[in-house]
Amino acid sequence: MATLKQVAAHAEVSVQTVSNALNAPHRLRPDTLERVNKSIELLNYRPNRNARSLRTSAVELIGYCVPNWPNQTHLVMDQFLHALCAAAERTGRHILLFTAPPGVDGMPTYDDLHARRLVDGFVLSQTETHDPRHGWLKEQGIPFVSFGRVWKQTTQPGPWVDVDGAAGSAMAVRHLYETGRRRIAFLGWPKTSGLAEDRAGGWRDECKALGLPISGLSVRCREDSLDEGARATAALLDAGREIDGIVALSDVLALGALRELTRRGLTAGHQVGVTGFDDSPLADVVSPGLTSLRQPMDDIAAELITILTGAPDGTPSERLLQPELVIRGSSAPG
Amino acid sequence: MATLKQVAAHAEVSVQTVSNALNAPHRLRPDTLERVNKSIELLNYRPNRNARSLRTSAVELIGYCVPNWPNQTHLVMDQFLHALCAAAERTGRHILLFTAPPGVDGMPTYDDLHARRLVDGFVLSQTETHDPRHGWLKEQGIPFVSFGRVWKQTTQPGPWVDVDGAAGSAMAVRHLYETGRRRIAFLGWPKTSGLAEDRAGGWRDECKALGLPISGLSVRCREDSLDEGARATAALLDAGREIDGIVALSDVLALGALRELTRRGLTAGHQVGVTGFDDSPLADVVSPGLTSLRQPMDDIAAELITILTGAPDGTPSERLLQPELVIRGSSAPG
Repeated sequence: MATLKQVAAHAEVSVQTVSNALNAPHRLRPDTLERVNKSIELLNYRPNRNARSLRTSAVELIGYCVPNWPNQTHLVMDQFLHALCAAAERTGRHILLFTAPPGVDGMPTYDDLHARRLVDGFVLSQTETHDPRHGWLKEQGIPFVSFGRVWKQTTQPGPWVDVDGAAGSAMAVRHLYETGRRRIAFLGWPKTSGLAEDRAGGWRDECKALGLPISGLSVRCREDSLDEGARATAALLDAGREIDGIVALSDVLALGALRELTRRGLTAGHQVGVTGFDDSPLADVVSPGLTSLRQPMDDIAAELITILTGAPDGTPSERLLQPELVIRGSSAPG
Repeated sequence: MATLKQVAAHAEVSVQTVSNALNAPHRLRPDTLERVNKSIELLNYRPNRNARSLRTSAVELIGYCVPNWPNQTHLVMDQFLHALCAAAERTGRHILLFTAPPGVDGMPTYDDLHARRLVDGFVLSQTETHDPRHGWLKEQGIPFVSFGRVWKQTTQPGPWVDVDGAAGSAMAVRHLYETGRRRIAFLGWPKTSGLAEDRAGGWRDECKALGLPISGLSVRCREDSLDEGARATAALLDAGREIDGIVALSDVLALGALRELTRRGLTAGHQVGVTGFDDSPLADVVSPGLTSLRQPMDDIAAELITILTGAPDGTPSERLLQPELVIRGSSAPG
């Protein structure tokens, strides 16, 4: 039987053009299409549909929806995707990326990808409070696992992996305490964020456990921006709170804190110890480096893939992993 | 056997509604769902699973290697991936993510994915000077398209799409000139980077065209970090260059410049106009906002997919797109 290459040579076009004649004939000029079709007929070429369908059925693909939130920074997204791909590949699987509208409007896309057997299951991330996806996928019997918890629900539908934000904040408080700080503030987000409440709780409990004050030392920022981090820091300093430590909910807020300290001639680390969250690429490029809590991306990805692709009986389907405190100049003792 | 169309006619609904009844019943009003289900039963309609799996086999997947360069920030990677997915989906294709070792060591991975028909072609990005992938893929006859040029070669193997860095720098210079600046410096990278030389050339040529000085106004930073941007800015100010504008090769260098200006009590925008490159999420969160050159991600992605999936004859396979200057406070006239 003739090959694609032979057809291309016969019609004096590229292999791609023959492929287009078969799959996207509208892309070709009518005379080109006619010439290719004539060659296909003359050489009795048959595209090998069986070979093609084999490839999809033999390899499992895992769907991951690439987020599109213009006003949000995904500073560790490439780290997460790399870890997820590598973990999937270790089991012979691959990641299929797709886009979908946020919320319940995206559900038909998930459904369609699964119904067409393009993917065998999904990894969810960027979970929101009252995220509709988990309940919907569970109801449909479509396999999935979530990186991140759905907050403010008594039980979360389906399995999940997450990082212990409360433990992370507690680690940051303990570290600042051990480097001599006694008045440690917290920069957070609005109360509507479950993730923010989790991290705030860790700060509060650890301060109490160490006998440190918390009253008047917690500030909610309106959004995750440098400006808001700087504004909150200025408010704490202006109110005469005499802070010597700041645990920020994110690297972006922490950078805002560093900027405000610098602006006032205070030295981060030396005078006020500052920590962030996520260990984003920014933590390493600012001066002094930003002490931050790293999410164990490789472990997270490995757990997600293990749970999704059929964990052995007895493996818990809810996994809370510990972050790691990466110490840099912003918390160096004075 | 009944078809989807016959069911739709019988139930007096659209084909889409029948499809929803089968795949996403929650989207229908209960009475509509009941009516459609009755028609399905009466006409003894069976969704054609075979037709479904055939459709899957026809879906082309495009491979994209997710980079893992621990010391590099990919601040616009999620934007790029989202645009690429959306562009592929508009042609009925999807993106398959994979990991591979950098350079020539990664070639067997590309080869394997293509040989197993898991992907039909590749989109390359993060191209390097003397990138080995382009020549290798071309030699193997594996379809690919590159986002970014391979610098320092007389001819680049295979098709590419890129953003005109020289034009971008020229736009930035012109904008600063029009807001009254007359001594505009350039913060760049080492000479080994083709991308950096391209952007530096645009600054140089536009300054000359406008009759502005360039001597002593170009600084090469050792790496893409805030510290280096701040150091270079300090060097320019300490040398008494009397600069009133800074075109930085990246947002990160530009942020370093802003930091150094603030540290010295100078107002970005008012006293020294600053521009960055990439319009990363950071440009919008710093105060004052950073004027920056946005890469037209949607257009880039659309061109990549068009070229890869068989551009009509006559479509150029080398496309240089224009960046867009997004003006914010850092270049506001004094």
